Amino acid sequence: MARKLRMGMIGGGIGSFIGDVHRKAAAIDGMINLVCGAFSSNAEKSKKSGQKLFLSDDRCYGSFEEMITAEKNLPKGERMDFVSIVTPNYMHFEPAKLALENGFHVVCDKPMTLTMEEAIELEKIVEKTGKLFALTHNYTGHPMVKQAKAMVANGDLGKIRKIQVQYLQGWLSTAVEKTGQKQASWRTNPKKSGIGGALGDIGTHAENLVEYITGLRIKEIAADLGVFGEDRVLDDDGNILLRMENGAKGTMSISQIALGEENNLAIKVYGEKASLEWQQENPNQLITRWLAQPVKVFTPNGNDLYEEALNVSRIPAGHPEGYLEAFATIYKNFATHLMAVRDGRDIENPDYPTVKDGVRGMQFIYAAVKSDKNNSTWTKFN
Amino acid sequence: MARKLRMGMIGGGIGSFIGDVHRKAAAIDGMINLVCGAFSSNAEKSKKSGQKLFLSDDRCYGSFEEMITAEKNLPKGERMDFVSIVTPNYMHFEPAKLALENGFHVVCDKPMTLTMEEAIELEKIVEKTGKLFALTHNYTGHPMVKQAKAMVANGDLGKIRKIQVQYLQGWLSTAVEKTGQKQASWRTNPKKSGIGGALGDIGTHAENLVEYITGLRIKEIAADLGVFGEDRVLDDDGNILLRMENGAKGTMSISQIALGEENNLAIKVYGEKASLEWQQENPNQLITRWLAQPVKVFTPNGNDLYEEALNVSRIPAGHPEGYLEAFATIYKNFATHLMAVRDGRDIENPDYPTVKDGVRGMQFIYAAVKSDKNNSTWTKFN
Amino acid sequence: MARKLRMGMIGGGIGSFIGDVHRKAAAIDGMINLVCGAFSSNAEKSKKSGQKLFLSDDRCYGSFEEMITAEKNLPKGERMDFVSIVTPNYMHFEPAKLALENGFHVVCDKPMTLTMEEAIELEKIVEKTGKLFALTHNYTGHPMVKQAKAMVANGDLGKIRKIQVQYLQGWLSTAVEKTGQKQASWRTNPKKSGIGGALGDIGTHAENLVEYITGLRIKEIAADLGVFGEDRVLDDDGNILLRMENGAKGTMSISQIALGEENNLAIKVYGEKASLEWQQENPNQLITRWLAQPVKVFTPNGNDLYEEALNVSRIPAGHPEGYLEAFATIYKNFATHLMAVRDGRDIENPDYPTVKDGVRGMQFIYAAVKSDKNNSTWTKFN
Amino acid sequence: MARKLRMGMIGGGIGSFIGDVHRKAAAIDGMINLVCGAFSSNAEKSKKSGQKLFLSDDRCYGSFEEMITAEKNLPKGERMDFVSIVTPNYMHFEPAKLALENGFHVVCDKPMTLTMEEAIELEKIVEKTGKLFALTHNYTGHPMVKQAKAMVANGDLGKIRKIQVQYLQGWLSTAVEKTGQKQASWRTNPKKSGIGGALGDIGTHAENLVEYITGLRIKEIAADLGVFGEDRVLDDDGNILLRMENGAKGTMSISQIALGEENNLAIKVYGEKASLEWQQENPNQLITRWLAQPVKVFTPNGNDLYEEALNVSRIPAGHPEGYLEAFATIYKNFATHLMAVRDGRDIENPDYPTVKDGVRGMQFIYAAVKSDKNNSTWTKFN
Repeated sequence: MARKLRMGMIGGGIGSFIGDVHRKAAAIDGMINLVCGAFSSNAEKSKKSGQKLFLSDDRCYGSFEEMITAEKNLPKGERMDFVSIVTPNYMHFEPAKLALENGFHVVCDKPMTLTMEEAIELEKIVEKTGKLFALTHNYTGHPMVKQAKAMVANGDLGKIRKIQVQYLQGWLSTAVEKTGQKQASWRTNPKKSGIGGALGDIGTHAENLVEYITGLRIKEIAADLGVFGEDRVLDDDGNILLRMENGAKGTMSISQIALGEENNLAIKVYGEKASLEWQQENPNQLITRWLAQPVKVFTPNGNDLYEEALNVSRIPAGHPEGYLEAFATIYKNFATHLMAVRDGRDIENPDYPTVKDGVRGMQFIYAAVKSDKNNSTWTKFN
Repeated sequence: MARKLRMGMIGGGIGSFIGDVHRKAAAIDGMINLVCGAFSSNAEKSKKSGQKLFLSDDRCYGSFEEMITAEKNLPKGERMDFVSIVTPNYMHFEPAKLALENGFHVVCDKPMTLTMEEAIELEKIVEKTGKLFALTHNYTGHPMVKQAKAMVANGDLGKIRKIQVQYLQGWLSTAVEKTGQKQASWRTNPKKSGIGGALGDIGTHAENLVEYITGLRIKEIAADLGVFGEDRVLDDDGNILLRMENGAKGTMSISQIALGEENNLAIKVYGEKASLEWQQENPNQLITRWLAQPVKVFTPNGNDLYEEALNVSRIPAGHPEGYLEAFATIYKNFATHLMAVRDGRDIENPDYPTVKDGVRGMQFIYAAVKSDKNNSTWTKFN
Repeated sequence: MARKLRMGMIGGGIGSFIGDVHRKAAAIDGMINLVCGAFSSNAEKSKKSGQKLFLSDDRCYGSFEEMITAEKNLPKGERMDFVSIVTPNYMHFEPAKLALENGFHVVCDKPMTLTMEEAIELEKIVEKTGKLFALTHNYTGHPMVKQAKAMVANGDLGKIRKIQVQYLQGWLSTAVEKTGQKQASWRTNPKKSGIGGALGDIGTHAENLVEYITGLRIKEIAADLGVFGEDRVLDDDGNILLRMENGAKGTMSISQIALGEENNLAIKVYGEKASLEWQQENPNQLITRWLAQPVKVFTPNGNDLYEEALNVSRIPAGHPEGYLEAFATIYKNFATHLMAVRDGRDIENPDYPTVKDGVRGMQFIYAAVKSDKNNSTWTKFN
Repeated sequence: MARKLRMGMIGGGIGSFIGDVHRKAAAIDGMINLVCGAFSSNAEKSKKSGQKLFLSDDRCYGSFEEMITAEKNLPKGERMDFVSIVTPNYMHFEPAKLALENGFHVVCDKPMTLTMEEAIELEKIVEKTGKLFALTHNYTGHPMVKQAKAMVANGDLGKIRKIQVQYLQGWLSTAVEKTGQKQASWRTNPKKSGIGGALGDIGTHAENLVEYITGLRIKEIAADLGVFGEDRVLDDDGNILLRMENGAKGTMSISQIALGEENNLAIKVYGEKASLEWQQENPNQLITRWLAQPVKVFTPNGNDLYEEALNVSRIPAGHPEGYLEAFATIYKNFATHLMAVRDGRDIENPDYPTVKDGVRGMQFIYAAVKSDKNNSTWTKFN
């Protein structure tokens, strides 16, 4: 009998935002069971979280090292297949390295690592161990993002000329990190977050989305970062010019002090033949504009879509899928790949972000910080 | 150790629309495991479906009778806790009755039964057996629908005066039932669907939503049904006047031949002090209008919400939840209730649609058909 | 030298809503000069209004009778060409009749008259005198309404099956007529407004828009009128079922107690091949839906329009035209016709609402009131 | 008797886009009569245009010099009061100078002049002659722009932190200037347009809108201009970073090759206490976001507006005003000022763009071009 994949989680104790998201996303398509976790570095807390998740105490560990060792020693029919790492940035590299080197596949949140050095080393470890590695750039899981990518790839837009991307949030408008809010606390702390603040947390999503949809690499950027929150040291705002490898130009606006914005990731791509627009807060529309035709609006499972979009639409048109479903698509594609590997089958073009996307994201953060320090001088990264 | 609930499914073989929806919805919150199913009346097909769902063959049954008998004979620690019935309308009553009478709780798709007689009998069986019964009027699971209901209940709108509700689809614009499309085939067949076509499939959702949000009962309706599809015998369109118990008036427009509409369920409620508007295709907004203030737009986990809305918002504002999440909320609230019952705890106001909503839906269908036959004469139901 | 047309106004003293609208609408396209007016039945007030409009005192009259007589006696090169009647409903018939019988063309606000009898007589007078008569069903002047009409006429939608129309306002939610508000005062007074309240004021617009766009006549209606405002005698709300001459069905919802609604006139028309949607508050979009193509959104002067829409778009796409411009199009088309008549030229299909539309509107009001009195019995009008 | 103002037009022959806009805008509020024009440098063509505008031949001139001289010699009761200059950029300065120096007030299209030198000189001439000078930055005439400005001025947003502004058009996506299209031809020609292409045509609107709403000056910019159209020499695209005098940061994206965009001017302003968003293509909404309240949407003549917005709303809420009405507000405020001056009255804070805004616009163009030439180095202007 075929069996579901077994997932162990690192981080994500009850009350965490992103741990819960990963669990729900992993559950939706019925391919993955959560079987164990190191939900906290406090063994008691880890068990408490595990209980609420209906796990037995003996699969709730007090550290990722303990979990990886213990699971490795379980019989093959019981032990976890992969780990999902949902800790703050500074706790990505070590568990990922240990898991990979002990034979476990990895799903990891973004940005991939705390530093560039870690990112480069992690890429090597993935290559060396041959294990699968997925990075949860979840927004690429939306059907309309797949449609957008397919339209560009098929030449519907012609040569790309201009890009506008923004990722605007307002939740750091006030100094919430001083109120003990956990999310804010580590994200504004360079020891836990790295050299980028908003850059790492949301900027990498914007960067990844641009390159994913257009199939083009950003060649250089000129960045003007803002640090508006009282006593903050990391950027909470960024205004960035883009130059793409093909000569296209653009702007990126990111912020966590854009008061009142909830999670406003949006992108516009203008080509010589057509243009497209997608907004995360209204993800089930892809607005397209044309030289000599009226505006056309595509919807998941709607008319006239490419296979790439149809493949990831779960329910009929008009039944909105959202954030969790797109996130689930990353897990689903990863699980599909992993099941194939497990069964000794091949799979063509597994479609989920990899360690290479993670390295790219770190390059983006570093280039932006460098440009900003040089008064927004154009700075290459590739 | 606390444990997840065990679900058995009746109907919903691989390829079915709504079975897959129920499975995903039941999975999202990690409280329910699918453990068995009678996915088809063909035992082989049932097993094949089960395999794709990672079930063992011995828990895949060729009939609901077989499943209920077999599961009843399993040890308490293994047998299913409840069944989820996702068959066409004519196959709701018998499995529900058998499950209830054999000690299993029930989740059932809508409309509840094929006939009014069945509905009334089922209500009695639920009362007699004391088992839990949830009807999946899934749209009531949306955070913004909860907010709407809470606003009315708290008197924010004042006395309700006017209601507009619509549920518009276009997928039966052409005679797709003649192409062998399964969904269309049974829904246009009175033997499988009952006396209502669009009335039962989507009209009951509209009726339920009106009463859920306003807390008012519809007193009487004047219905003009349409049968536009070639050779059809059941309504595929309806235009209905509403009179509410408190004197409010309104219109209901439902259709499955509203070409190009995807799943356009929408409601407007106008009171003496304020008004509200909600649209299923853009479910994460509740638009409210006021006598002397600007339009205010509420969002899940956004500012200034009632507890009822906050309680069912899973992720931060701006991360859209959709159809599956609202559906999941029905399962979650049902599961929460069932776990409490299992553990001998009480629960206040479990918030999910019950057998009474199911009876109400059947009354609506019958009243609409009767009014239509009498050239749209006002027809009471209550 | 060609010359502008000379307009005299009846009603519309400074401070009135609709008089000002007519003046601005008549001015926009530079074809019409306001030369005189009977702005008030008080000669002094009329002069005061005229002064603010830069008119000389001797062209400001204390009654329409005085104006028509005096203007008739002016030399041909000075006297007004037509009158614009912008008084409350009960003051439409007499001035229109007198103007027509004294050789003046007429623009008249809607509903056309106070009673059905007046409407029928006015139709005869127009026929007898051969003068031009325009009724300001202004919403038919929008480019996207013209496009909608052209699409239906060209068969793009196929046979029409379903119609939804609504005209929702909230300004009579409270008893503003008791505060001395002039607009509310006469509109809620049957002596000045006729037997219809909201029916006449906005219902006739909805009725006219349905027939204008679809090219179909409404065959019968079933109306449930509401009188919600304290001490009101005329309807301030209406819920109406529609049956069209071709078998299409639909709903009409009108209200002036739909709290918070500003001027929400909107229509959806569903055909066998395509569908369309237009909203007055966002008038520069026509949303169309198709069997096998994505949603297409048309815009004034945008791509792929019919001539009928292009002809009435004044400025490039993306430069929104609004209420006044659509209103101006009625005046422009009337003026174009009148100039042609003046110059002895012919004109094909002058496109503005006529006395026949006025009669049709009165029939609608009477049928709705009759149906409502008979507990929403289907009532024919044609 | 009070009298209307008399306007002479320079440029704007029949068929021109902006001449027609100016005429309609000047006509709407009934304060201005067009009495003469130098519509073309070809006297015959000028007369032909005049005839279509119902002007007598003797008031249609073959050059602006001829017009100014001739009108000056007319009796005071006949001669024009002011000129409206609607020619391409290179033909602004000379006619403005001549008009001012001969006692005529001036309305002038933007950008104000061909060169910076002209701008500075024109400012001096305006000061010296004491005549009124209005620059048609028409978008500042919208009620919701007035509301936005008033909200910032009243401190509703707190300190401004971030700005996003865009002005996107697609009409130069292809080389339309090679097809003989007049608008495109002069706008892409540096001899007629100046050193800025899109910068002058639309960038100055964006720059003006930012400073108008926020009441803050842009301190420096870093610009990356694009020249995408075949054989073009002037920018048709620009991506610009902004730093405001108060420390706020932002992005500006302008384009005339943003294929499919019609006239998408939009601005977002984020403060420490609230934020606002306005879009020209949907101008009758002002979306505002708050720390602890739901999103509020303001509308012209809607609830809770500042006087500044109410003052320029012509018709009741829900009756959309558009591009022409906002343009008309510039003329109306200019005319109100001019009538006051004429009558020897004072006026407080006349609200229309002046020669100073024109100088500011030229500074913006020059700074952007300079920054771009220096590989996007931060460049001050003030």
